[in-house]
Amino acid sequence: MKKILNDPSTVVTDALRGLALAHPELLRVSTDPAVVTRVEPTPPGAVAVVSGGGSGHEPLHSGFVGPGMLAAACPGPVFTSPTPDQVVAAVREVEAGGGALLVVKNYTGDVLNFETAAELLEAEGVEVRTVVVDDDVAVTDSSFTAGRRGVGGTVLVEKIVGAAAARGDSLDRCAEIAGRVNSQVRSMGLALSPCVVPHVGRPSFELGEDEIEIGIGIHGEPGRERIPLEPADGLVRRLLEPVLDDLPFASGDEVLLFTNSMGGTPPLELYLAHGIAERLLAERGIRVRRSLVGPYVTSLEMRGISVSVLRLDDELTALWDAPVRTTALNWGS
Amino acid sequence: MKKILNDPSTVVTDALRGLALAHPELLRVSTDPAVVTRVEPTPPGAVAVVSGGGSGHEPLHSGFVGPGMLAAACPGPVFTSPTPDQVVAAVREVEAGGGALLVVKNYTGDVLNFETAAELLEAEGVEVRTVVVDDDVAVTDSSFTAGRRGVGGTVLVEKIVGAAAARGDSLDRCAEIAGRVNSQVRSMGLALSPCVVPHVGRPSFELGEDEIEIGIGIHGEPGRERIPLEPADGLVRRLLEPVLDDLPFASGDEVLLFTNSMGGTPPLELYLAHGIAERLLAERGIRVRRSLVGPYVTSLEMRGISVSVLRLDDELTALWDAPVRTTALNWGS
Repeated sequence: MKKILNDPSTVVTDALRGLALAHPELLRVSTDPAVVTRVEPTPPGAVAVVSGGGSGHEPLHSGFVGPGMLAAACPGPVFTSPTPDQVVAAVREVEAGGGALLVVKNYTGDVLNFETAAELLEAEGVEVRTVVVDDDVAVTDSSFTAGRRGVGGTVLVEKIVGAAAARGDSLDRCAEIAGRVNSQVRSMGLALSPCVVPHVGRPSFELGEDEIEIGIGIHGEPGRERIPLEPADGLVRRLLEPVLDDLPFASGDEVLLFTNSMGGTPPLELYLAHGIAERLLAERGIRVRRSLVGPYVTSLEMRGISVSVLRLDDELTALWDAPVRTTALNWGS
Repeated sequence: MKKILNDPSTVVTDALRGLALAHPELLRVSTDPAVVTRVEPTPPGAVAVVSGGGSGHEPLHSGFVGPGMLAAACPGPVFTSPTPDQVVAAVREVEAGGGALLVVKNYTGDVLNFETAAELLEAEGVEVRTVVVDDDVAVTDSSFTAGRRGVGGTVLVEKIVGAAAARGDSLDRCAEIAGRVNSQVRSMGLALSPCVVPHVGRPSFELGEDEIEIGIGIHGEPGRERIPLEPADGLVRRLLEPVLDDLPFASGDEVLLFTNSMGGTPPLELYLAHGIAERLLAERGIRVRRSLVGPYVTSLEMRGISVSVLRLDDELTALWDAPVRTTALNWGS
């Protein structure tokens, strides 16, 4: 295993120390338990949007902590859910009377631990709502999931509901908006190469010299099929068609198109894929109103991409455009 | 070669089309010749800061086009200088009477082509100054260079001189500031893995299972030495000590610390390295006033990092903090 680290068992904590040193004006980091909170306090009565999940998907979630997005994030060990204690500690630190909205990706461990945390918090008198993100159309159940997996759509949920919380929406309203984004977004990914979890030390799966895994999960879980490498036009079509057919998206829809790197895909390939996706959408009469291109939901150094399509309405568009200031998304502020 | 592309010979143009589609509010892209310009026009009499270089280092340079940074960028073929024609076309499009400052990385082809472009532009009556960035302390001459190579420091030069141009500084003043940044910044990198240039189709070099190349260039040029993999503390020290000893930096200095991914290094490893670098600087009495962490000067999918240290003064700090709005750096705007 070739990685820049000292000890596989402390990699998350070591990285959090670097995060804290790099962004003192924006973030505060605790390591016991591991919690990243924004320096700017939650306004009294406003909703605190809190998320978390296994590490190794950075910038998800700690890179989205800041004004206009998350109030706090709980990073678990690599590819492993945070504990209920982490979630409770995070909410206690940022909740300001308006309640907490928990954004949870649909993996069995995460759902269970956030559920336990929600019960503990409610017993303390904190109002909690949870949105479970399950946007991945590739497979229905998986090694880590009952139902669909939560993947790229999570970023869009967190940005949009973060903006709703920032404008003062109530907890119920925030829960409705987060649920609406989840209901209107679909995603699918592919992998060109696996990744190596530090404490495991070997690749999460094996791919032949010319093999691609279509429908890959963000922990390297198997997808729909393995195919030989083919030109980008075909690869992007293999992701986009299941995404569009699922909702289904229709001619006349206006969407946000999110082309995501799984970590090790260069911007050159990513923008190339984005251009292809936009042309395929145009062929179906679907108009891209907003774009997001970059490594936002990653699987360590995995090479590959995912494509997410979110059907926009005017409110979701305005919330997407609203100011945000985090290490990974930053505009208008 | 496993990549997301259609045809190795059109990869740059195909990616530029995606870039244009993704950021219509910020960028305008021409493909013949390849030029990326910002939508916001150069204010009359202001300096137009223009850069460019081989593709494959994204977001450098097109990801730094926008208000507060570059007026235009000229992407060459992968790892190959843009032509003089590209540079002339870019400057013609954005120059607004205040002259053009060309930011050029010190590689033989780039220096020659930007020089030719400068002569052509001066013959047309456009005032031009050039700053050649040569911040890499790893080697003195290389396969592509007479003198030191231009690497991570280029981003810092472009951000800071872009802010000087935005506040209305004269061409001479901009040239002085860009030269000052270059004189105060030093960098060095390492590689864990090579990259594959699309039109070549095979890795740029070979590294053994546990080998690291110390002092790597951004085109995969050899560095100082190959060593067996070691813990991150030692790796970061091997980069930072030559950087600090070169200027030299001294106790009491205040610096910007820039920890850069060569493309395929996950944020977890990058922030971990940043934390180590900051501690090593503290040991020498050097204070980190500003941080930058991310993939900003890449070599396609290469895994590795570079560390750049810039000695700050109050003016450089204020220009660093000034608003910028580009796809890769975005704050305060």
